[in-house]
Amino acid sequence: MNNFNNKNMNVDALFLGPKSENAVFFREMMEYAISEHIHWRSGYHPEDPDLTTTVDRYAPEYRDTLYRTEGILNQLSSKLKSTSVPWFSPRYMGHMNADTLMISNLAYVMAMMYNPNNCAQESSPTTTVLEIEAGLDLCAMFGYDVQTSWGHITSGGTVANYEGLWVARNIKTLPLAMSKHPQAKVLLTETSETALLNMRTCDVLDLIDELKKLGLFEEIRDLTCRGAGVEQGKLGKLLVPQSKHYSWMKAMDILGLGQQNIVQLPVNKNYRTDVMKMRDIVFSLIEQGEPILAVVAVVGTTETGAIDNVAEVIKLRQECEQRFGVSFYVHIDAAYAGYACAMFRDENNQFLEYEALIKRYHNDGIFPVDMVWPKQDVYESFKALNQADSITVDPHKVGFISYAAGAICMKDKRIVDLISYHAAYVFEEVKESSRKTDKQQNVLLGSSIMEGSKAGATAAAVWAAHRLVPLNLLGYGKVIAAGITTANWMIDKINSSPSFVIDGREFTLVAMPAPDFHMINFMFRETGNISLEKQNQLNKRLYELCSYAAGRTYANDFLTSSTSLTYEEYGDNPQNLCLDANFKEEEWHKVRSIYVLRAAIMTHCLRDKQHFENYWNELKNIFEDKLQQLIDEENKHSHSLQKVSL
Amino acid sequence: MNNFNNKNMNVDALFLGPKSENAVFFREMMEYAISEHIHWRSGYHPEDPDLTTTVDRYAPEYRDTLYRTEGILNQLSSKLKSTSVPWFSPRYMGHMNADTLMISNLAYVMAMMYNPNNCAQESSPTTTVLEIEAGLDLCAMFGYDVQTSWGHITSGGTVANYEGLWVARNIKTLPLAMSKHPQAKVLLTETSETALLNMRTCDVLDLIDELKKLGLFEEIRDLTCRGAGVEQGKLGKLLVPQSKHYSWMKAMDILGLGQQNIVQLPVNKNYRTDVMKMRDIVFSLIEQGEPILAVVAVVGTTETGAIDNVAEVIKLRQECEQRFGVSFYVHIDAAYAGYACAMFRDENNQFLEYEALIKRYHNDGIFPVDMVWPKQDVYESFKALNQADSITVDPHKVGFISYAAGAICMKDKRIVDLISYHAAYVFEEVKESSRKTDKQQNVLLGSSIMEGSKAGATAAAVWAAHRLVPLNLLGYGKVIAAGITTANWMIDKINSSPSFVIDGREFTLVAMPAPDFHMINFMFRETGNISLEKQNQLNKRLYELCSYAAGRTYANDFLTSSTSLTYEEYGDNPQNLCLDANFKEEEWHKVRSIYVLRAAIMTHCLRDKQHFENYWNELKNIFEDKLQQLIDEENKHSHSLQKVSL
Repeated sequence: MNNFNNKNMNVDALFLGPKSENAVFFREMMEYAISEHIHWRSGYHPEDPDLTTTVDRYAPEYRDTLYRTEGILNQLSSKLKSTSVPWFSPRYMGHMNADTLMISNLAYVMAMMYNPNNCAQESSPTTTVLEIEAGLDLCAMFGYDVQTSWGHITSGGTVANYEGLWVARNIKTLPLAMSKHPQAKVLLTETSETALLNMRTCDVLDLIDELKKLGLFEEIRDLTCRGAGVEQGKLGKLLVPQSKHYSWMKAMDILGLGQQNIVQLPVNKNYRTDVMKMRDIVFSLIEQGEPILAVVAVVGTTETGAIDNVAEVIKLRQECEQRFGVSFYVHIDAAYAGYACAMFRDENNQFLEYEALIKRYHNDGIFPVDMVWPKQDVYESFKALNQADSITVDPHKVGFISYAAGAICMKDKRIVDLISYHAAYVFEEVKESSRKTDKQQNVLLGSSIMEGSKAGATAAAVWAAHRLVPLNLLGYGKVIAAGITTANWMIDKINSSPSFVIDGREFTLVAMPAPDFHMINFMFRETGNISLEKQNQLNKRLYELCSYAAGRTYANDFLTSSTSLTYEEYGDNPQNLCLDANFKEEEWHKVRSIYVLRAAIMTHCLRDKQHFENYWNELKNIFEDKLQQLIDEENKHSHSLQKVSL
Repeated sequence: MNNFNNKNMNVDALFLGPKSENAVFFREMMEYAISEHIHWRSGYHPEDPDLTTTVDRYAPEYRDTLYRTEGILNQLSSKLKSTSVPWFSPRYMGHMNADTLMISNLAYVMAMMYNPNNCAQESSPTTTVLEIEAGLDLCAMFGYDVQTSWGHITSGGTVANYEGLWVARNIKTLPLAMSKHPQAKVLLTETSETALLNMRTCDVLDLIDELKKLGLFEEIRDLTCRGAGVEQGKLGKLLVPQSKHYSWMKAMDILGLGQQNIVQLPVNKNYRTDVMKMRDIVFSLIEQGEPILAVVAVVGTTETGAIDNVAEVIKLRQECEQRFGVSFYVHIDAAYAGYACAMFRDENNQFLEYEALIKRYHNDGIFPVDMVWPKQDVYESFKALNQADSITVDPHKVGFISYAAGAICMKDKRIVDLISYHAAYVFEEVKESSRKTDKQQNVLLGSSIMEGSKAGATAAAVWAAHRLVPLNLLGYGKVIAAGITTANWMIDKINSSPSFVIDGREFTLVAMPAPDFHMINFMFRETGNISLEKQNQLNKRLYELCSYAAGRTYANDFLTSSTSLTYEEYGDNPQNLCLDANFKEEEWHKVRSIYVLRAAIMTHCLRDKQHFENYWNELKNIFEDKLQQLIDEENKHSHSLQKVSL
């Protein structure tokens, strides 16, 4: 699908840029987008009479309405300029936000004026097709067979996760439903409840085909939880890493499964799901006869960017199938790092061998020759994605597309039948007939997905991005690599930075080592302080000084985000970070939470080493200023306390 | 909130217009939006070095990337122009689509460039506030107390309906959960399961306050279905009109409640829920001891625009409370007609008395003096909206805002506690402290709603629309009245239209009489044909000739949509329409489905009587052409059949 010549793609030419470097081009194209639409309107039935004459348009109330429009837009623009966050700048290193692709913003605006609704193709003849194409682009990137898989856009990763769990839940109840129906029952080889609740996804999907042949599918579907409702506690446990995104808690609530049926998988010192512990948990559930509703692996956690060992999850499933005849659904939450799968594919969409990949990275200047990414096990995780049943991925994160654009891909599109619907008024069936010369389809997205009405403009934005920036190592690979490179340099600098001495107090920087992706966690530490609680306060206050909490972000020199790594989410693993920062083990056990500054390094602007060096030198000065500010505040505070006590 | 002087708002000045009449203004404002952002970027830390130099930008691969961007946008524009549907034109009368407000499109683009994410205020300092304001605008329009209610934007009416049912479901299980907890149990006055499952919404919300005071709320919440999962069949029935939108079927599946727990309320000859039958069903459920999870009333059905008697639903609830001590949740699906509530409010947001309202309509030129809208019971329905527990309303329908923008309003914001969540990394708690001078809030939308990440630009679009077009009879009222007026004129013309005689065959038009809102259903009828099946084929083919099914919509003279009114959805009520069209009763009983052309009349362009007359004359010619085309096809077809038989 990405058959453009992309050898020469220039990353800076994709974005408006930190100084609006591409302003002239952007304006021209925006003007083009608008002109095209304006002329489309005025060219439609030119014989139609003018309903609003020039005279009408000079009437005072007409002018007044336009002036008021302008006034409100002035007001909105002032608001936006005074409080928005400058994601576009390398001075912002926090949430998964960066500059967005010019082409996507232009495509969005272009399509928005036609206002397509991708709920049904009748309301979006152009953009429904673009959504199907964009979905298949993602499927191909993950290594799914585009003939048998499918993907579509959602409003975000949260809704995509819901949809993954929805499908997993409904498929779980199909064999049970069949066992209650005499004609369908005969299709089942085993009929014990345990066997029925532990079938392989692909085997259940084959049963759907069989049911359809017998004309029984719809009847059976009504007997699944879709028709009958969820049976409390019956469908087993959802296994999610302890580090899970909170959308999984919401998902279990919404889908009626209950949060208490989440089993949290402990993470290891790399903040990834601990494979050995996962095995133990899975085996013990099987022993207890408790079904596993699904296992979720996270590709890019929101706090540390950790990438779960997907290959191990897939292996474990195979093992369970072979040893115990027990299988489970696997969903990958790759909302954050999913687009990085493009980094492993060449121009022919081949997933490269590890050695060949690293060689291409260096030969094609995707990474500096002294940098090796990814770790071998991260590589294996991406390679195994095509074995998962479904995958969440967010174009509005590492796809560099504006909000709101999430997506879900499903390995086997037959699964959609478990959740699909129809409504007569939007989903008019258009029969193929001799009258139609074009190969007209009538795709009914709204009947096969969770959401209903949805902006076709989003599909245009994602589609256009995929056309310009192919989902391979020379397209998205190049853009994402810029961030990873910078993240690695940042960590090196942080760990080798000399200390900051301010008013006789000494501060050093500590970073969490070797992240899987481009999320870095770091903190300041004051020499002599042995209290983790004070340490956390220090970093919390530094975060406040480097965020919207300090007032107008536009006036701030550096912006970041932060998080607390807690015992609740990570067990005792953050202890290592405490030790690295010279806190004693008992401090960790006392506080059980460590506050870190957290930065997804998504900027494409610092991939040149010299630019990065200059940036770092400036950043050091900024850090010094922030520390000075913090000390001044403290001094002022203790001074005023002294005053009071006098 | 809408304290602008809107006396003089001109409706034509709100839209780009069918001939791009406001092209100059629109371009200027778009240029302004883009300039403001471009200068915002270039003004940010002007001391920063140029990372991309002019020389870099003239490199071949840089230019090549820009050219390719342009090429892809050319391609996208061609696609959009060749297959998009001209919603903007009065020649389009079909789905709930029309031109969209210029200000909203401009506001969207303006905000999109800053790319705010309304999941958390940290990621959208400007637009989260705008979303809260826009939500409260809608609450105020519905007559909710803005101090105690809340509303927010969703991706569409479907998700808003899910959220309404989610809240209704979770609140239903709270008293049950309390009864399982010794300390919480004492707060309950009655503890029979029947009593617990039939409490008033407001009483349960008061219990939440009590639980919070005792520090027990979170513990109890974990015992509700949110924590424990849904108990199959326990929570009672969802009562939805037979004419329901299919999103309710999806909702019952997704929320784990099961579609078989939907009880369909039959509709009456006006296609509204039959109040007497609803009473019988409710009383009979109460008698059986079956709880009522919620009753849904529809304000503007998608097929006929029927407006349920909301006041009767509210009255019925009161009656049930008084007679049986049984209550239920009431949700209003006003996705389509919700914005029409603005038509009943004056400049001070007062809901006018009926007589006063009609007088103002005529005095202010909102409706022609010879037209009286609404029917008295429709008026009562809108008046009673403020008694409902929650309301779905779609800005992207009658709010004239681009996709995707739905919304939900909740009468009592305490209800949000039953569904709310937190995640450390987005929802950094910002303590009020002396350091902050501005009244900074940290609103965490993502933790209190179904969706996660969402476009802040949508909030800007809705907010700006509400500022320019106030939610009262002089704002949205004027715009919506234009459509209703045209719909009424259309029905008069259809019903009084002389027949079309083509090739010796005679066709007449029949419209469904007196719609509640601006959706009209009509059909052609051939004199002499007594077969309803043939009748349906005729109109199906006419629909195809007036839709994207006929090929390029841009080249079409008239575009509409269609639907089938079936026994399944409407019982025997469509029989009246058959009789009106001179089909015999037995024909209806044989076919049980009548195919109609369906048009939401949303255009603002035909509110001038003379314009409308001219339009109708042209439309008659178009209808004649379509009929001619249909007859030619038939003749050609029978001719070729004859040839074959020769």
